[in-house]
Amino acid sequence: MAGTVREVVDALPLVDHHCHGAVTADLGPARFEALLTEGAAWPGVSPFDSPVGVAVRRHCAPLLDLERHAPAAAYLARRAELGWQEVNRRFLRAAHVETFCVDTGYAPHPVTSPAGLAAAAGADAREVVRLESVAEAVARRGVDAAGYASAFRAAAEEAVRRPGVVAVKSVAAYRTGFGLDPARPTYAEVTRAAGLWFARGGRLTDPVLVRHLLWTAVALELPLQLHAGFGDSDLRLHQADPALLTDWLRLTAGTVPVLLLHCWPYQRQAAYLATVFEHVHLDVGLALHYVGPGRAGAVLAEAMEITPFRKLLYSSDAYGVAEFHHLGALSFRRGLAGVLQERVDADELSHTDAVRIAAWTGRDNARRLYGLPVSDPGHD
Amino acid sequence: MAGTVREVVDALPLVDHHCHGAVTADLGPARFEALLTEGAAWPGVSPFDSPVGVAVRRHCAPLLDLERHAPAAAYLARRAELGWQEVNRRFLRAAHVETFCVDTGYAPHPVTSPAGLAAAAGADAREVVRLESVAEAVARRGVDAAGYASAFRAAAEEAVRRPGVVAVKSVAAYRTGFGLDPARPTYAEVTRAAGLWFARGGRLTDPVLVRHLLWTAVALELPLQLHAGFGDSDLRLHQADPALLTDWLRLTAGTVPVLLLHCWPYQRQAAYLATVFEHVHLDVGLALHYVGPGRAGAVLAEAMEITPFRKLLYSSDAYGVAEFHHLGALSFRRGLAGVLQERVDADELSHTDAVRIAAWTGRDNARRLYGLPVSDPGHD
Amino acid sequence: MAGTVREVVDALPLVDHHCHGAVTADLGPARFEALLTEGAAWPGVSPFDSPVGVAVRRHCAPLLDLERHAPAAAYLARRAELGWQEVNRRFLRAAHVETFCVDTGYAPHPVTSPAGLAAAAGADAREVVRLESVAEAVARRGVDAAGYASAFRAAAEEAVRRPGVVAVKSVAAYRTGFGLDPARPTYAEVTRAAGLWFARGGRLTDPVLVRHLLWTAVALELPLQLHAGFGDSDLRLHQADPALLTDWLRLTAGTVPVLLLHCWPYQRQAAYLATVFEHVHLDVGLALHYVGPGRAGAVLAEAMEITPFRKLLYSSDAYGVAEFHHLGALSFRRGLAGVLQERVDADELSHTDAVRIAAWTGRDNARRLYGLPVSDPGHD
Repeated sequence: MAGTVREVVDALPLVDHHCHGAVTADLGPARFEALLTEGAAWPGVSPFDSPVGVAVRRHCAPLLDLERHAPAAAYLARRAELGWQEVNRRFLRAAHVETFCVDTGYAPHPVTSPAGLAAAAGADAREVVRLESVAEAVARRGVDAAGYASAFRAAAEEAVRRPGVVAVKSVAAYRTGFGLDPARPTYAEVTRAAGLWFARGGRLTDPVLVRHLLWTAVALELPLQLHAGFGDSDLRLHQADPALLTDWLRLTAGTVPVLLLHCWPYQRQAAYLATVFEHVHLDVGLALHYVGPGRAGAVLAEAMEITPFRKLLYSSDAYGVAEFHHLGALSFRRGLAGVLQERVDADELSHTDAVRIAAWTGRDNARRLYGLPVSDPGHD
Repeated sequence: MAGTVREVVDALPLVDHHCHGAVTADLGPARFEALLTEGAAWPGVSPFDSPVGVAVRRHCAPLLDLERHAPAAAYLARRAELGWQEVNRRFLRAAHVETFCVDTGYAPHPVTSPAGLAAAAGADAREVVRLESVAEAVARRGVDAAGYASAFRAAAEEAVRRPGVVAVKSVAAYRTGFGLDPARPTYAEVTRAAGLWFARGGRLTDPVLVRHLLWTAVALELPLQLHAGFGDSDLRLHQADPALLTDWLRLTAGTVPVLLLHCWPYQRQAAYLATVFEHVHLDVGLALHYVGPGRAGAVLAEAMEITPFRKLLYSSDAYGVAEFHHLGALSFRRGLAGVLQERVDADELSHTDAVRIAAWTGRDNARRLYGLPVSDPGHD
Repeated sequence: MAGTVREVVDALPLVDHHCHGAVTADLGPARFEALLTEGAAWPGVSPFDSPVGVAVRRHCAPLLDLERHAPAAAYLARRAELGWQEVNRRFLRAAHVETFCVDTGYAPHPVTSPAGLAAAAGADAREVVRLESVAEAVARRGVDAAGYASAFRAAAEEAVRRPGVVAVKSVAAYRTGFGLDPARPTYAEVTRAAGLWFARGGRLTDPVLVRHLLWTAVALELPLQLHAGFGDSDLRLHQADPALLTDWLRLTAGTVPVLLLHCWPYQRQAAYLATVFEHVHLDVGLALHYVGPGRAGAVLAEAMEITPFRKLLYSSDAYGVAEFHHLGALSFRRGLAGVLQERVDADELSHTDAVRIAAWTGRDNARRLYGLPVSDPGHD
């Protein structure tokens, strides 16, 4: 508890409650640059010419033994020289995370398993089951429409019984957006929709089945992570405004914890929901490394305007390049410490409270929600 | 006019143009904590662990003779020891408000009347008539559907003739949201909707009747306060975006002043409306004490980006605990002074202009709109 | 490259990629004040009592040989005394713009032609063709419904062949909002809609014809400027949220550059689109002078949170009073330099990168997109 808020936050091991694996292969420049953006690599424009690219050159280069602000070409060359194992190891350890909760349902590249991530990081890892992947596997392996509801439920129950699973996740925001009928669909509705889906094929995008997935999630009695706000070009951003989910949140009050992920630019809307609904929590993951450490405090300050201190968590939402596991943590630490120190300096907050809030946000809220082991007693 | 902007703003008596009464009973810890949140008290999580809770411990504790940042338990004990009369008196006087405009239509607890609030504060008080309460009283006392429109109009006219009434208010944002048909409904539509409402019972939520209420409000020729944005869990936040009201505002141009209350997180949308429609005004009440004095400036700065200086007002929207009447005023003063002083320091604004803008925002705009008496000539 | 970021930015000639002409007549106080607002002049309230009014008194008064923060009356008197030619000349030169791209399709007042603006400014000017004006001219000159599609296409092609035309523009956001069917309408749909329009008369507001206009724009193979967000009272702000355009942007990927203009308060939504779609770019014009130099940095900082550095441009969107051509440039320079210098000071960004980003944003991105001549090699 001694030291500035920044020193305390820098020393705090985090729980990264939502991330993905790091690629387990050497990446040529084009593949690395594609992973650096939520868009894609565009001819003639370097993905390094962006806030996240600048942040990588500033904060990741030194971990590869380069100067701060090293040129992109030097960065890519040195990364290749070190090889993916060493690169992953350096960034994952630098993140200083005690537990990664890993969404294993999205992996277009070969990436580390939770165990592989844990080993490289010298940390613990748990698993988050992406329910759309479970549903799509059920559809792929063949089931008749009338059997879909129970087959999906059984598959989801089986998936969450795997050792280390601590939560489920849905990307309903991508598939239909949050402006859906909040009611639990009937068995007949689900069967009819499943029939149409199986005939059509492809991803689960039917609104009835997305609703059914969300209600099935509730029945699993694990924390439910929901993508909200910022993502890639597959999204309609305005339909991922979590305020659109209000009626469903009202119906599910008293059930499982709901974790709104990312949320940017709707962090204030998410904060409102976390303030009025007991089961709602939020983070501003993904946005943190995209805006970089220089701007993370501004985004966090909005997320923290009214949010009760037990409701905000840390995640990186890093995928693919281990730079992001590190940069997410760094942006979070700098941003959070900045916001809290400023309030301490203005005597709006006591130093003791600031330290408690930092530990809750960076670690203890996640420990409690996911039932993670407590080596250090924390502030609960 | 001498002194820093902060000194000037601290010395300025405010008009709190929208608030509620303070509870006239001693509050046990659970009831106090429930009043502290826009949500409800949640088991195992103290409402003090929130920005507003921290602000109460920082800024209200000293008024109860405690140390800054006093622990929650000590705060509750001292509050009980002093008793509600003394607590209300201290906070209401500390707010340094010359006139409270009190919404008397929402009072699930026993709270001060406008006169009681005025007496405790050593201030003046006026009344704001909540039209939904008037309409629901008309429905409760029994009227046939065909007589509803004229009975409601007559009851509203009678209500606003009471001494001290300066405005009417609607919570249409809660009942239907602002995305409603802007047109004035016909008599036949109102009668049909009233028949359905009387058969169904409960609160006024029918979209035709909500529209009718808004148009009846216009006919009363008093300023109309509209809840917008931030509120409790009964709201769908995105439907309370005041931009959704644009067509209705266009139709009512040239009629009564419209006061958009709260607005957060849509303060920029409200600012746009206040910039392009002569009759539209706004405040960021309620949000100010929820975010606390450390963040009020950031919210006000957004609200003030383009808003003409005669269009922004102060309200606390305090309900129940007199801490909020004080904390709203304090957050407003600190936030406003901070925004204005920063511009003066950057030579973007003259000190004379800053003082004038402060007086308009904190007092004179409300005096003019509500026809309040002017003891000090102000800057009009 | 030597000097502070601010010195570099102050010395940089800008490309103002979207503006209008300046009035070519002396303006009495009432007409000047009406041009100062996006609303209209309101009796009893001076348009100078607003952020933009304060900024004019602070930053434009000295260019008319007055003191900083000169009173409004003195400002108006001195402006009248100098006459419109001298006033335009002073402000347009002070803007230090190398090229103005002028929207010639909106001119309720007598305003400078692009050539006249260029001459007064000692700069270059290009033209932006407003497609709604082209379509409405086609309708006015008489064409049968079956011939509308080809007549509009031919007129648009002819318009963009005029010397100096570098882009087209649409105000679809005003006419229908962006929540329209993204699909290209069929010939039969267009013909039917044109028949209804010709029978009804008035402005082009039919959703089928607005869609047809946007798709015709794509076929012209020039950059397409789209009004988004902030404007006058003719707008429904929430329908001008550029995120609503996502499906159309997905369909038009790989075609013409799309430039989202203004965007406030949806600059983060626009930034998301520019981050995930290769052809999308943005600016925060119009908002910059309305918020003034003291707040422009805050708006730009949001616009720059995730936006790739090749995707942000400068425009003033000045119309009517040449104060805005100057104030837009000044607000942009101060805001941008502030954001970049802060990051350099925090060692989040190298000075070299900051200078490169400034030149891209203020000039080089526009040069490249519009094919403007390069006297100074810039940073491409």
